[in-house]
Amino acid sequence: MTETIGFIGLGHMGLPMARNLLDAGHAVRAWNRTAARTDALAAAGAVPAASPADAAPEKGIVVTMVADDRALEEVVFGPGGLAERSANGLVHLSMSTIAPETARRLAAEQARHGGLYASAPVFGRPEAAAARKLWICLSGSEAARARVRPILEVLGQGTFEFGEDSGAANVVKLSGNFLIAAAMEAMAEIAALAEKSGLERSAVIGMLARTLFSCPIYQNYGAAIAERRHEPAGFRLALGLKDVDLALQAARSAGSPMPMASLLHDRLLSAVARGRGALDWSALALGAGEDAGLPARR
Amino acid sequence: MTETIGFIGLGHMGLPMARNLLDAGHAVRAWNRTAARTDALAAAGAVPAASPADAAPEKGIVVTMVADDRALEEVVFGPGGLAERSANGLVHLSMSTIAPETARRLAAEQARHGGLYASAPVFGRPEAAAARKLWICLSGSEAARARVRPILEVLGQGTFEFGEDSGAANVVKLSGNFLIAAAMEAMAEIAALAEKSGLERSAVIGMLARTLFSCPIYQNYGAAIAERRHEPAGFRLALGLKDVDLALQAARSAGSPMPMASLLHDRLLSAVARGRGALDWSALALGAGEDAGLPARR
Amino acid sequence: MTETIGFIGLGHMGLPMARNLLDAGHAVRAWNRTAARTDALAAAGAVPAASPADAAPEKGIVVTMVADDRALEEVVFGPGGLAERSANGLVHLSMSTIAPETARRLAAEQARHGGLYASAPVFGRPEAAAARKLWICLSGSEAARARVRPILEVLGQGTFEFGEDSGAANVVKLSGNFLIAAAMEAMAEIAALAEKSGLERSAVIGMLARTLFSCPIYQNYGAAIAERRHEPAGFRLALGLKDVDLALQAARSAGSPMPMASLLHDRLLSAVARGRGALDWSALALGAGEDAGLPARR
Amino acid sequence: MTETIGFIGLGHMGLPMARNLLDAGHAVRAWNRTAARTDALAAAGAVPAASPADAAPEKGIVVTMVADDRALEEVVFGPGGLAERSANGLVHLSMSTIAPETARRLAAEQARHGGLYASAPVFGRPEAAAARKLWICLSGSEAARARVRPILEVLGQGTFEFGEDSGAANVVKLSGNFLIAAAMEAMAEIAALAEKSGLERSAVIGMLARTLFSCPIYQNYGAAIAERRHEPAGFRLALGLKDVDLALQAARSAGSPMPMASLLHDRLLSAVARGRGALDWSALALGAGEDAGLPARR
Repeated sequence: MTETIGFIGLGHMGLPMARNLLDAGHAVRAWNRTAARTDALAAAGAVPAASPADAAPEKGIVVTMVADDRALEEVVFGPGGLAERSANGLVHLSMSTIAPETARRLAAEQARHGGLYASAPVFGRPEAAAARKLWICLSGSEAARARVRPILEVLGQGTFEFGEDSGAANVVKLSGNFLIAAAMEAMAEIAALAEKSGLERSAVIGMLARTLFSCPIYQNYGAAIAERRHEPAGFRLALGLKDVDLALQAARSAGSPMPMASLLHDRLLSAVARGRGALDWSALALGAGEDAGLPARR
Repeated sequence: MTETIGFIGLGHMGLPMARNLLDAGHAVRAWNRTAARTDALAAAGAVPAASPADAAPEKGIVVTMVADDRALEEVVFGPGGLAERSANGLVHLSMSTIAPETARRLAAEQARHGGLYASAPVFGRPEAAAARKLWICLSGSEAARARVRPILEVLGQGTFEFGEDSGAANVVKLSGNFLIAAAMEAMAEIAALAEKSGLERSAVIGMLARTLFSCPIYQNYGAAIAERRHEPAGFRLALGLKDVDLALQAARSAGSPMPMASLLHDRLLSAVARGRGALDWSALALGAGEDAGLPARR
Repeated sequence: MTETIGFIGLGHMGLPMARNLLDAGHAVRAWNRTAARTDALAAAGAVPAASPADAAPEKGIVVTMVADDRALEEVVFGPGGLAERSANGLVHLSMSTIAPETARRLAAEQARHGGLYASAPVFGRPEAAAARKLWICLSGSEAARARVRPILEVLGQGTFEFGEDSGAANVVKLSGNFLIAAAMEAMAEIAALAEKSGLERSAVIGMLARTLFSCPIYQNYGAAIAERRHEPAGFRLALGLKDVDLALQAARSAGSPMPMASLLHDRLLSAVARGRGALDWSALALGAGEDAGLPARR
Repeated sequence: MTETIGFIGLGHMGLPMARNLLDAGHAVRAWNRTAARTDALAAAGAVPAASPADAAPEKGIVVTMVADDRALEEVVFGPGGLAERSANGLVHLSMSTIAPETARRLAAEQARHGGLYASAPVFGRPEAAAARKLWICLSGSEAARARVRPILEVLGQGTFEFGEDSGAANVVKLSGNFLIAAAMEAMAEIAALAEKSGLERSAVIGMLARTLFSCPIYQNYGAAIAERRHEPAGFRLALGLKDVDLALQAARSAGSPMPMASLLHDRLLSAVARGRGALDWSALALGAGEDAGLPARR
């Protein structure tokens, strides 16, 4: 069954996701902060909306996929924001990577006005989004989850549910990004050790990524780290720092220290301070090399 | 082509490895520090040796698989040690997890007396050893490597070579163990965060180990960490601390700081101080939970 | 020359400071969130005010000394807040420990309305406040600083100036608290090492605090740490965590990683998670002992 | 009462200490690894010895003040070493900075041969040694301590005793050096934060070192760190790394994690890797600046 779906945020991730909704036969009303990005989607059949509120279908679903907590709050509470349409059953399907507490607050606000809110952050890069290969974490009220499940099937290869707490899916998303960053730092440290010991960085990481750690995270990031290849950015380092900080903030609220996340925060902040915020976040690996007196460039 | 092979060290790993040599048609002369362990192997056809030197075949290969650097030095330089037979082409196939510098020193000593030395530490637990599923890292002189390659094919599922430096294979082995410990600590931190946030530990780790990190290290250790199941010990925590310390020692010599390894050292040392040295090394994960005020027991 | 001064926030620090203003001959209009605390001061001659705005003298100085950034923003921008009186030269002498960015924002707002803002956070415990022994950091526009200098002479034993940036004094204050926490953690680690090595904790710390580190921070906190004496709280641990987090936040904004502050954050957060938020912040030292398997209690 | 005293190790510290013994009226038999350094002392009245053993007076005291554990073991167990004279009551007054375990082993050996051993490492730079301003930590058997006390009064301004365990004084010495390094790293982090925040490094550190932390460690190292002035080396960074590593090794043996010491190890090792091993150990502070993207040079 198809329907009209609102889609807000046509960035590297949002655009291919919205396309997939169109391809699946849904009508899409799209809005983006910088209007130029809506044109491509309009050519594929989407209807440009004048504001987030204008994109929201009556009693329908509106997907948000924006850069960070602040952008999402602007989309909801700013002028022409979704809050104007919360009443009467609007379903906010919130897929951005944001803080669990932001998700909980938005869900509570939405509920107060009679709407529904589902948290559904995703794992995957733009190519995965285009290929419907995203992994999706879902949480929120049973009513909200029931309403959005069919949509998520169109967007990803699998959805994992984490119960009623609207912040839960965000905890999982931030945990996953933290796990990736931790694996990258660990590989960075052995790459530096290898180089300083006279071994080939690629040989060491390659061996481990073909045996004990034969999964794409180790294989792809491992190759980038071994070769110091951090452009173009698949995921910008400055955003990686933002996500590790969100994890630390969630850990602060929950009362759960994360020393490894603290270490990653320091590494990523140092990389930003050295002007690497626009590189791929695997560039955090340059820090371990510099600490060992190695040059940052090949 | 089969031959007579000396085998020293019949522990959890050594015993199944020696069996595989017998099964492949080789004759085996075996020695173990506590003689009782040789009986099982004798029943399978091995000849018990009176000392390490006695196990070493004339111009043949002797495999060592012992607990640590000190045990290996005792086997080589102690009374009845291999050093007595170094001359005239004895090939020392050294498969224990030891420091790169120890390997280099032993190789130099061996060369000085006309013998050969190959470093070949392995990845895999006892079941993998029994099933010939070990992954093997090999380094040393070309002559040494050429001589031992056929034997390694009988013991593992794949051998990766790292050149002439006898210490190189040990750097890779220690790097791999460090990578495992780093992954465990990262999972421990998200498990604690999940629990303090009201989520199921197993649900969070399980999701990530089925998607982004679908490799056995994350799946098996992840389940153990989520369930706080650290007995029986597949690999004792005290040995894990030893290995992380060897990595730090190698990094010290190479001039390559490893802050994540420092963090793991602290975690593992704390676990030993709390009486967990005989648990599986995944018990390092209990620390993150206690830091968050969670009980160490289920 | 004496004048009428507004005083907002009569906590452990604010009350003795306001008394000193009265003793120096100033008239004081006082306001506190919970009114009961104003009674003691009224008995000493202060005039109770109905609101922060009501406490602010025409073109005069109003001192604020409240718990945190949020409390200060409430006092300024909340109903009956100081913002209502910013115009026409009100001088906000802001002495709370807050984020540099909050100070900068408040100063900009104040300037926009024609008022002045001086940042003047202090070092010292309540007894030091009573004895006019506070050390004061001062920054802000030259006009603001010139106006408040005579008042600060009544409150402390020395004022250090850090220029025009309203956030500068707060950077210094947060740096000082971080330095104290770092010294405490360092002492905690040697206390644990001493105890585990069979030495007297007090003997080791006492020797170092009488020789190399003969200053009150090491002497007083050192004794508390050696004896595990963390009650009553001179400065609550939960506030210590808040201050270290403000330092980390300032460092994040400035692009300056502080790995030691990250470590302290983790320690303090762990202490809060274990229910020690109301103890003196020297109780962060219990963590090092627990990591070493020592009991948290004497 | 004066006597003949053996003195081994005439480096920056040993030479002025030996001079003080001469000035106090003692006869001194001196030995140094490189003989040239004995000439200056011979001019002041000391008798050059042909070997460590030759320097040891019959039933008298021999002081050792050498670079590290290895140098001390050479002096004791090498050819012409003190071990040849251990019997019959030779008193080894061991003042070098060495591992507690080395001290315990040497003391046990010495006792086995009928001699005495006292550990007496010192705090202070060469100028303090010359001025008899050293602080001395003393431990060992009561008999050994009783015998050396009068000598220590000639060398320092105060002696602190730590009981029968020969390793105890070394634990205290290593703890003190660790405390200094921790204070330096903490100041380095606030210096970087200050600079990135637009403040003067010297103003911030200077204020704190004149108020809360008015002791020479903060004042002298603080000035060096603020000004990035790390030459000439009062205490070489490579030796600082050695001492922090000895502290970590003692903590490993005692079962007491020291995360701050781990962090300092990483910082100091990085400094060595960047070629700063011969600078003053306050140069560890350059790391925090580089992490913040600041240049290492003024």
